[in-house]
Amino acid sequence: MSARLYDPAHSSAVLLDRLRTSTPLVQCITNTVVTNFTANVLLAAGAAPAMVDIVGEAGAFARIASALLVNLGTPNPQQRDASREAVAAARDAGTPWVLDPVAIGALPIRTALAHELVEFGPTAIRGNASEILALASGGAGGRGVDAADETEAAAGAAAQLAARFGAVVAVSGPVDLITDGMRTARIANGDPLLTRVTGGGCALGAVTAAFLATSDDPFEATVAANLVYTVAAELAADGANGPGSFAPRFIDALAAVDASTLAERARVSVAVAGLADASALAAAGIRA
Amino acid sequence: MSARLYDPAHSSAVLLDRLRTSTPLVQCITNTVVTNFTANVLLAAGAAPAMVDIVGEAGAFARIASALLVNLGTPNPQQRDASREAVAAARDAGTPWVLDPVAIGALPIRTALAHELVEFGPTAIRGNASEILALASGGAGGRGVDAADETEAAAGAAAQLAARFGAVVAVSGPVDLITDGMRTARIANGDPLLTRVTGGGCALGAVTAAFLATSDDPFEATVAANLVYTVAAELAADGANGPGSFAPRFIDALAAVDASTLAERARVSVAVAGLADASALAAAGIRA
Amino acid sequence: MSARLYDPAHSSAVLLDRLRTSTPLVQCITNTVVTNFTANVLLAAGAAPAMVDIVGEAGAFARIASALLVNLGTPNPQQRDASREAVAAARDAGTPWVLDPVAIGALPIRTALAHELVEFGPTAIRGNASEILALASGGAGGRGVDAADETEAAAGAAAQLAARFGAVVAVSGPVDLITDGMRTARIANGDPLLTRVTGGGCALGAVTAAFLATSDDPFEATVAANLVYTVAAELAADGANGPGSFAPRFIDALAAVDASTLAERARVSVAVAGLADASALAAAGIRA
Repeated sequence: MSARLYDPAHSSAVLLDRLRTSTPLVQCITNTVVTNFTANVLLAAGAAPAMVDIVGEAGAFARIASALLVNLGTPNPQQRDASREAVAAARDAGTPWVLDPVAIGALPIRTALAHELVEFGPTAIRGNASEILALASGGAGGRGVDAADETEAAAGAAAQLAARFGAVVAVSGPVDLITDGMRTARIANGDPLLTRVTGGGCALGAVTAAFLATSDDPFEATVAANLVYTVAAELAADGANGPGSFAPRFIDALAAVDASTLAERARVSVAVAGLADASALAAAGIRA
Repeated sequence: MSARLYDPAHSSAVLLDRLRTSTPLVQCITNTVVTNFTANVLLAAGAAPAMVDIVGEAGAFARIASALLVNLGTPNPQQRDASREAVAAARDAGTPWVLDPVAIGALPIRTALAHELVEFGPTAIRGNASEILALASGGAGGRGVDAADETEAAAGAAAQLAARFGAVVAVSGPVDLITDGMRTARIANGDPLLTRVTGGGCALGAVTAAFLATSDDPFEATVAANLVYTVAAELAADGANGPGSFAPRFIDALAAVDASTLAERARVSVAVAGLADASALAAAGIRA
Repeated sequence: MSARLYDPAHSSAVLLDRLRTSTPLVQCITNTVVTNFTANVLLAAGAAPAMVDIVGEAGAFARIASALLVNLGTPNPQQRDASREAVAAARDAGTPWVLDPVAIGALPIRTALAHELVEFGPTAIRGNASEILALASGGAGGRGVDAADETEAAAGAAAQLAARFGAVVAVSGPVDLITDGMRTARIANGDPLLTRVTGGGCALGAVTAAFLATSDDPFEATVAANLVYTVAAELAADGANGPGSFAPRFIDALAAVDASTLAERARVSVAVAGLADASALAAAGIRA
């Protein structure tokens, strides 16, 4: 970790600008429920989506893609094999990738697959508290994609996964928690309407992949993805009449959000392992 | 049937409130065209969707889900086997489930599958007139999901299916017809724009499943699903500029519809087998 | 080619009216990302979508459908076999069909499949410049669905494909190019927002299929599809706040677009092989 001042809002704005300029090609192997929303979210954020999820193409594409998302929401046999092919190629080619272990714990096939894929070293892991707990502990997980557990309850599991697999781990909830084992960010932005649109979490996994392509620091990239996403949700909620009108407003907001809005709205705190208080953070060049 | 007064609008409002309080977990095995819309409709209505549709998970999940939908819109081999697994488990565990035999009649694979699955005793069957006629008679069915036949033309077939399989049968059309063989409700609410949004019928099947989880009386639950759904469509149509703006307005309306709106707008008549006229209905404690 | 005056805006309005009156049944074998949007676009345009894409049904349905779309966006093994079944049946039964070779070139499975299917004689081929170049030449293609090449760069490839397979070839881009080898139309309508909604190109393939069912002249039908579609995009863009609000406005506009709007907005030029200038066109009864 460098001694430079880390300002999450500023860093996120820089990476967002880089994303829009470079249009990273984001391969998605994701569930059938959210493919459309995910692609539209990526396009709005400034990335180029490519849902290449069949055996015989997924691996070759993971070598040329800017980043890869593997989401286990509806893991039919074809997608399971395509995921294996893709993550092996991503590891080999150095393509950053995100694992989203949707609803693991109670459901046997995806749980086994998540444990298998995580060994390939995802750059980032994204899930709700139940899923992160299940991935870390082999625990029982949640009842689908609901977060039965609070985000903070998964803080220890997230740190453990980060240390074991060298991944950034992002736990979604009312306050998002992002950690690489050393640094932990908490983002208090967002809006409950985001949880009433299907794919609200899944598409964030894809946006995280897009941001991973913009920076050598996966922690800052994952913070940027979460911050841009949740600030856009706030903008969209303002004036929405419900989840139906929220969704298109959210897409519009993702396309429109800018540096000054991020600076105004960001509610992010960052803690560093071994540094107990704000003065310690300041001494380390970290602004909480 | 009890002698209590059955007021469809009031009963539906009670069940809607129960749905929103209990957030039933609704497993959907449905077609690739409507997964996203179906999930958003369920979320707006107050349920928790879970598209668990793969072999090896579908059965286990059907045991813990609050309700199950099996929709035959795009029945690839994986979904066919997952459906078999799920309905067997649902029967075994007592999970209420809905069969939506999309476009059966002309298309051989789904037609055979519908006839196979219906033997597992769905709690409710939902379709347009063509599909209900095809399921009851092995008839030729329609040309896809259009209802070539009028709702009333399927009244006899619906009663026959209800009697044979112990299921509530709902026939969608300009006037929805719902029967359990003894009681028959006709709901004249709705708006033609609902037929111009893909999944308008399919998502109703999922909402029916959600309501089945709120009541021991599948007839009242199915009436509630149809009434809440079609009243929301009326609210959404008011001010829409076409099918594109109707869809998000419909999601908003589903999240917002309440008891007083249902009471104001409900256009429901209920008939009881063997009771020929309104005075007979009144004597039985049924308000037409 | 007849000597009658060909007025693209007028011809397109006539075919649009015919489409809305006849409600052609359009079978779609398309990718999982765009099924929902495609179905809603077809409904808005006035057609009846039917996503019949499984082995054992795809062929039988292609015999009774008004038109067929085969889109290679997510070609899993089931869809590949269903596509083979469907195009063979379409050729046999005389059902017009559209091939959309999404992202061919770099991706091996779909590239081989496109070369295989095109031998069955599609009525129309639709793609961006990269895809058309790859189909004509076995070239490297683009990086997914982006059009790395300009439309005009594919003019020669389009003419070559048209001549070789007897198909109308439509190249999407800022200016759409449509050719049957003899006649070439260039349509300068549209809006960049259409490229920021996923499925913007894919759904045009489905609309092209719908228009093919309205005319014996596939060239005029394909021009009509492109013109109606891009004029609707212009109407939708006017007042949209971004890609999120554009999408429902586009669906509304497709349902609302009429002859007078087409006449006002159409920016179409038509060239005929061997006729070098406007006076020559006029002599042939072609209005540029």
